[in-house]
Amino acid sequence: MSAEPGREPRPAPADPYRARRRRLADWLVEQGLEAAVLADFEGLRNASVRYLTGHPMDALLVLAASGEALLVPWDVSLAERRARVEEILPYTRFGRSLAQALKELLPARGLSRVELSAAFPHPLVRELAAALPGIRLECRDDGFDEHVAELRAIKDEAELEALRAACRLTDELAEAAGERLAGGWCPSETELALFLEAEARSRGAEGMAFETLAAGPKRSFAIHAFPPYTAAPFGAKGFSILDFGVCWEGYRSDVTLTVIRGPLSARQERMRETVTAAYGRALAQVKPFADPRGIATDIDRFLEEAGFPMPHGLGHGIGLEAHEAPYLSTRRAAPPPLLQPGMVVTIEPGVYDPEAGGIRLENDVLITADGHEVLTRARLLAMEA
Amino acid sequence: MSAEPGREPRPAPADPYRARRRRLADWLVEQGLEAAVLADFEGLRNASVRYLTGHPMDALLVLAASGEALLVPWDVSLAERRARVEEILPYTRFGRSLAQALKELLPARGLSRVELSAAFPHPLVRELAAALPGIRLECRDDGFDEHVAELRAIKDEAELEALRAACRLTDELAEAAGERLAGGWCPSETELALFLEAEARSRGAEGMAFETLAAGPKRSFAIHAFPPYTAAPFGAKGFSILDFGVCWEGYRSDVTLTVIRGPLSARQERMRETVTAAYGRALAQVKPFADPRGIATDIDRFLEEAGFPMPHGLGHGIGLEAHEAPYLSTRRAAPPPLLQPGMVVTIEPGVYDPEAGGIRLENDVLITADGHEVLTRARLLAMEA
Repeated sequence: MSAEPGREPRPAPADPYRARRRRLADWLVEQGLEAAVLADFEGLRNASVRYLTGHPMDALLVLAASGEALLVPWDVSLAERRARVEEILPYTRFGRSLAQALKELLPARGLSRVELSAAFPHPLVRELAAALPGIRLECRDDGFDEHVAELRAIKDEAELEALRAACRLTDELAEAAGERLAGGWCPSETELALFLEAEARSRGAEGMAFETLAAGPKRSFAIHAFPPYTAAPFGAKGFSILDFGVCWEGYRSDVTLTVIRGPLSARQERMRETVTAAYGRALAQVKPFADPRGIATDIDRFLEEAGFPMPHGLGHGIGLEAHEAPYLSTRRAAPPPLLQPGMVVTIEPGVYDPEAGGIRLENDVLITADGHEVLTRARLLAMEA
Repeated sequence: MSAEPGREPRPAPADPYRARRRRLADWLVEQGLEAAVLADFEGLRNASVRYLTGHPMDALLVLAASGEALLVPWDVSLAERRARVEEILPYTRFGRSLAQALKELLPARGLSRVELSAAFPHPLVRELAAALPGIRLECRDDGFDEHVAELRAIKDEAELEALRAACRLTDELAEAAGERLAGGWCPSETELALFLEAEARSRGAEGMAFETLAAGPKRSFAIHAFPPYTAAPFGAKGFSILDFGVCWEGYRSDVTLTVIRGPLSARQERMRETVTAAYGRALAQVKPFADPRGIATDIDRFLEEAGFPMPHGLGHGIGLEAHEAPYLSTRRAAPPPLLQPGMVVTIEPGVYDPEAGGIRLENDVLITADGHEVLTRARLLAMEA
């Protein structure tokens, strides 16, 4: 993570990884645990490995209660450049088998009380339990992973720096696309999505935050347009939805703007007014100690009374993942924590009609000590007919 | 899956999903099971849901031993268009909780002997076992998931049609890029990657098979270039690696071509000869009843003796996933099955040197009754100095 030339992202000022591990080490000691084990591999992704080490992907992590980290990466040379850990061992040494690695490493290190990631598949945990009779293995939904998720929900300084950079770039891209569209550009959904990606990568982004959703008037009604972009036109008469974000040093923005090309029907006008009102009403409630589900419930009710029940959640946390805690949703079984300073969430009300199309407005919002700060500037973009 | 206009992919001729479920239903009966449960959600992806239903993503699947399928999708309207199943229930009905859905569905349907996907997290399986004392829950590494993986390794007619279409389009894109490069185009890695994606989407692909890897001479040595494309130049003097594929109706191709711009050093010439020889030597061994690990072992030894030990596997199956069974690798703990007609694998030897760069050649190969058929035409592309 030394300084890199040109357009490469600037590294965070200090080493935040050790500080994060230090906090988790305290928790491990409190819980009477000697280590926690996380894995981030194809089919078993876990962004907490990057959060705790700086290594971007494909590794096993053994975090000891001392705060020291042993990383077992797929790509050792990438780890040597990126990871800030005490020890690196190649995954090939263990036949690229998670079970094999843990069967060798845990007893050899004298670790006898260990928490495994809650994402670990049941057969793996059972196999380890049988192979390691002297080791107490925990694997709990409300254990280490959840504790890391709680920490990750409140961003530290290095994280806010990366998120602000992601948000700034997102605004630049939205403005560049908006100017082109206002100037008469009539792209396909694909052309628009790839324009954004080309600009994002050339300006130093690691990539997009998630697959861009570009849905022209014929598809903007769908909340789950599949595929996310096609050869269909974007920005023609009616509502066109553009939902995108960038990934900057691992951190992901997420905004939605709707391009509105008139003339609009009376119903479409009402949809525009309704989503604008819902957005303002939601934002006014975003502050410390607010209940995310309470805000979502209020907006769901508001939109239902307006005749447009919302088919998706009001918002969600963003960070190393495009969707993370806390969730502003009435649809989830688990109750979310109250909002706290340092959390960053999306606010994204949407109004949909099978005939008139869909209109959605989404920005990223940081909860501050006395309210909130909107980090992005997405808006409804009215274009000339 | 009715016929769609324009450049949209042509639907498979019959309904292959019921036939696949029928075969699995027989297996369930043999195993004394009444149902199997699979889930494909963010953080818990499982392409077998698409394999068995046609529904592309985000759903819970309960497959009864009668062969009937109950799908619980995130997006009901997408499921109504795409899924070929007997019953659809919205996931929102269960608070978007996998545990909640299964706690309600399994007893209500009178299912008392059920196999859960081997990917299910340990805490979920434990929670279900505690909540459903009357139901025998299996969750095995060598159970339902593995049996589906064995079926999926041997492609049926509808799958081969989609894979052939993916491979044809991949060849078209490689040729288009090669012609441009031969004509003097000097793109950045990003420009090349996005050119391929724009062409793929405009020609009807669902998307790319995986993140394109475009690594110019300065990065082609890395087997895991991160990020996979940057603003650095592609195709300058030396070796530039382009590893990409397209996704067609869910099926993924995977090829690598290396652009070679001379003049080459003596060592680079030897690298070219070595990778060409290794590729031919590997391909000659690809036929029914060959042992994938035996082929990988032979090529690993060949490359090591040539002075270029290979830091990655020789190949892998492709299908609904970019990496699936069987694996041609000496690095995996589990022994692979013997090659059989209907399997489609990559053959991708590579030779790397920290100074001279990296050179890799990869094509997709169908195992036939009497040998093999190479489905793609990637090659080493020598460009004028």
